Amino acid sequence: MESQLIAWLRERIPPHPRLRLGLGDDAAVFQLAREEDCVVTVDALMDGVDFNLVEAASCRFPAASPQHAGRKALAVNLSDLAAMAARPLLGVVALVLPKQGGLEIARGLYEGMLPLAEQYDLAIAGGDTNSWDHPLVVSVTLIGRATGRGPLRRSGAQPGDRIVATGRFGGSLLGKHFHFEPRIQEAIYLHEHFRLHAGIDVSDGLALDLSRLAEESGCGAVLDLSAVPIAEDAKRLAEQSADGRTPLDHALSDGEDFELLLAVPPEEAEKLLAEQPLEIPLAAVGEFIAEPGLWRREGKGPRRPLTPGGWLHDFS
Amino acid sequence: MESQLIAWLRERIPPHPRLRLGLGDDAAVFQLAREEDCVVTVDALMDGVDFNLVEAASCRFPAASPQHAGRKALAVNLSDLAAMAARPLLGVVALVLPKQGGLEIARGLYEGMLPLAEQYDLAIAGGDTNSWDHPLVVSVTLIGRATGRGPLRRSGAQPGDRIVATGRFGGSLLGKHFHFEPRIQEAIYLHEHFRLHAGIDVSDGLALDLSRLAEESGCGAVLDLSAVPIAEDAKRLAEQSADGRTPLDHALSDGEDFELLLAVPPEEAEKLLAEQPLEIPLAAVGEFIAEPGLWRREGKGPRRPLTPGGWLHDFS
Repeated sequence: MESQLIAWLRERIPPHPRLRLGLGDDAAVFQLAREEDCVVTVDALMDGVDFNLVEAASCRFPAASPQHAGRKALAVNLSDLAAMAARPLLGVVALVLPKQGGLEIARGLYEGMLPLAEQYDLAIAGGDTNSWDHPLVVSVTLIGRATGRGPLRRSGAQPGDRIVATGRFGGSLLGKHFHFEPRIQEAIYLHEHFRLHAGIDVSDGLALDLSRLAEESGCGAVLDLSAVPIAEDAKRLAEQSADGRTPLDHALSDGEDFELLLAVPPEEAEKLLAEQPLEIPLAAVGEFIAEPGLWRREGKGPRRPLTPGGWLHDFS
Repeated sequence: MESQLIAWLRERIPPHPRLRLGLGDDAAVFQLAREEDCVVTVDALMDGVDFNLVEAASCRFPAASPQHAGRKALAVNLSDLAAMAARPLLGVVALVLPKQGGLEIARGLYEGMLPLAEQYDLAIAGGDTNSWDHPLVVSVTLIGRATGRGPLRRSGAQPGDRIVATGRFGGSLLGKHFHFEPRIQEAIYLHEHFRLHAGIDVSDGLALDLSRLAEESGCGAVLDLSAVPIAEDAKRLAEQSADGRTPLDHALSDGEDFELLLAVPPEEAEKLLAEQPLEIPLAAVGEFIAEPGLWRREGKGPRRPLTPGGWLHDFS
């Protein structure tokens, strides 16, 4: 279990004066020349787990092109920078290619990455290329720069803060998981113009990532199920599948929405929601409370425990 | 072929004002706050290719512990920083773990990495952990800081420069490939106290990496085969195997020596070799020439073409 490993690592990795932020956040922050906060993040994506280059019965996804896989590999990392409200600076890419067809795959991956890099003014600094007799792995590391307000962190939420979400949730399997826009501009704009206490991007599921934000902040979170913005694809996915999961179930636990969850003080949240300063909708979906744990309510109804479903990397 | 991919990428990755050095070197260099050169490098290592967690008939290596694999994954990246004469600052680690036994492997990897990180005052900033049904991949990204003289590059060798090597070569399979010391201190000391034109670390083979240095510098290189320092393990490996390869063959192409090859102007090389300022030996093993290509000679004998054997990641 990953959380076990992180707990184990926290005990073993000593604090370092250069490292302002290490384990437990979306990215690492270090300071250079006492002027700028640099943000570093890494994410590895694997064929058969995060995408499927070849369609197979056992797959979660329909077959994807290397271009789609490449774009996604970069975009998930950009989303981590967005979670910190950091501007992308530079990226390096480590590829582990299958021996057969590796060259074409590598090209396709970069074809998927480069336009996105250009869009976000990210310098791709090359990296490392390897090959083997197993499926593709793409590992992307990004370095970014925090705004003058410093990085947005997971650990600043306070009881009473509203949970504010960008966009809509659920059904990412129907396409969004390849075509999402990392919320870089939105995060930077909000961080610079509003008082945000904490933030996270939703990669593994709305409920799961919210519970992580609350845990890092040492508080609890109550999700108002009646207020969760549900994506059209969540409804479509619920209709298509016979597993009985509702559109809300999909919104809570599908993951790969790559939207932002923000902790915003109540008055500031009111202002933010009234202004709606972004092109995408902002919605209040609950609030943080002193009591730890993840909770649900419907509108003004009673509060009950909520088990965070979502995508976990299981290993033992 | 990797070189094909790099050539293809060079055409497609536009120059970026922030990026002082990208493709074609051991690490990327970018500048922050107009004060310091940061160096970024990434290397992914794979079970069954760079080490074997389980012994198998098809393996190049005897079985290694996760600790050995972890140390190696960090050390090869430190060696890339050494090649740039950069001080380690910060590292992030992406793990792709097998589902079975992944937790124990991950711990072992970090157990191998952390002492080395401490030794080199490297801040490990966490990273990303994933799992799947295939062998282990460890991808390490390091950020370092160049000395006041700027990063040592592959591209500065000039005709007439001597080729100066640290240490001894060959036979790394017998143990050195896990236990080598990245030449960080040596590279920084030499770069700060002597006039070096270019440098590279030998990961894929003395001959192959020398040819890369020469190519990046737009010149050729003549290796004096009678001057190559041969490791004891190269002799032992030649004795053990019946493939007819001599100790020199091993020294030229085994790879994973993680020694440095430096391009040093003739007078400076003379001074350097006379002083022998390091605890490890420095040797002149040839010189750079205007005519491109890799060449060999024995002492004062005639110059003949040399085909660089070595470790290449083959994919098609």
